[in-house]
Amino acid sequence: MARWEPAARERLVVAAVDLFTEQGYDATTVAQIAERAGLTRSTFFRHFPDKRELLVAGQETLSRLLADGITEAPPDASPLQAVAAGLERASAAMGPLNRELGPRLKAAVATSTELQERDALKSVGLAAAMTAALLTRGVGDPTAHLAAELGVLAFKQGYAHWSEGNRDADDQLAPHTLAALDDLRAATATLT
Amino acid sequence: MARWEPAARERLVVAAVDLFTEQGYDATTVAQIAERAGLTRSTFFRHFPDKRELLVAGQETLSRLLADGITEAPPDASPLQAVAAGLERASAAMGPLNRELGPRLKAAVATSTELQERDALKSVGLAAAMTAALLTRGVGDPTAHLAAELGVLAFKQGYAHWSEGNRDADDQLAPHTLAALDDLRAATATLT
Repeated sequence: MARWEPAARERLVVAAVDLFTEQGYDATTVAQIAERAGLTRSTFFRHFPDKRELLVAGQETLSRLLADGITEAPPDASPLQAVAAGLERASAAMGPLNRELGPRLKAAVATSTELQERDALKSVGLAAAMTAALLTRGVGDPTAHLAAELGVLAFKQGYAHWSEGNRDADDQLAPHTLAALDDLRAATATLT
Repeated sequence: MARWEPAARERLVVAAVDLFTEQGYDATTVAQIAERAGLTRSTFFRHFPDKRELLVAGQETLSRLLADGITEAPPDASPLQAVAAGLERASAAMGPLNRELGPRLKAAVATSTELQERDALKSVGLAAAMTAALLTRGVGDPTAHLAAELGVLAFKQGYAHWSEGNRDADDQLAPHTLAALDDLRAATATLT
């Protein structure tokens, strides 16, 4: 019976996050990441342009999933209902590896300003993708911007809750991101 | 009668933004910035660690002003009223130079991923400063996060409106950021 072998791409991500956490981002080389993953440098470069991009590899996929969910929500869905559909779509794509990596990724990002900047741009990119999808649905501005920002906050808070929680439980990400969105919706009534 | 001479720091910022816009961020050196400003490289390095930091020089001041305004708002102010006080405090510090630089800064940021990342982290930093000030006031979470995000959006939208509008008019930034915050407050009712 063959043991499950993660694809090269996933092995590189796991190896990199471990090394970043162990010895810091700046001190980690592409050669070390490849070696830890049991692969060659040239395999690394077939998957990622550099070590920093590796950490945000999932951003384009995530943006696309969030936007697709918003676009395909029922025509009569409210802006936040559309955002919830985007969160459901994106959350469904996150499996045990994503959950496992969450806290380690956070630790790695904490070691480097460069990674914090890349991470901040990632949030801006997610918000922009959701805003565009909402505008295309005919949602006006600034409602579209605002709904998208709530979506980003809900995804980040839900993901943190899920990945930092009890790792044994077999729960999915979606309930966490949707609960976070509900909390934010309720909070809009307390801003006055 | 002595001609008004902007301080070295301001001259460096103006020279840098002009060069970034003319020839791109990557192609611009510290030596060129200093020369355009009529100053030496060592004067540059007395004010800024590198050319990138120059572009976000005002961030710490801006964070502090936003947070101070929130902290010193009347005890019975609502979360968004406190954010409005922060916006007023920060807006009052922005003069003609800031207004003049707005569109040029935007053009410069558009030329470089590195600057976009730094700019994104700047927004995260402003939101964090406002969130912390709101939590200290006793505002609960996620209301504090949400109010801070509205504050960042209002500042950015108000600043864009002000700096891209008719440059002859002698108006101040505050009415623009406060109007943007009002629009966002109204938009919370349309999220459903």
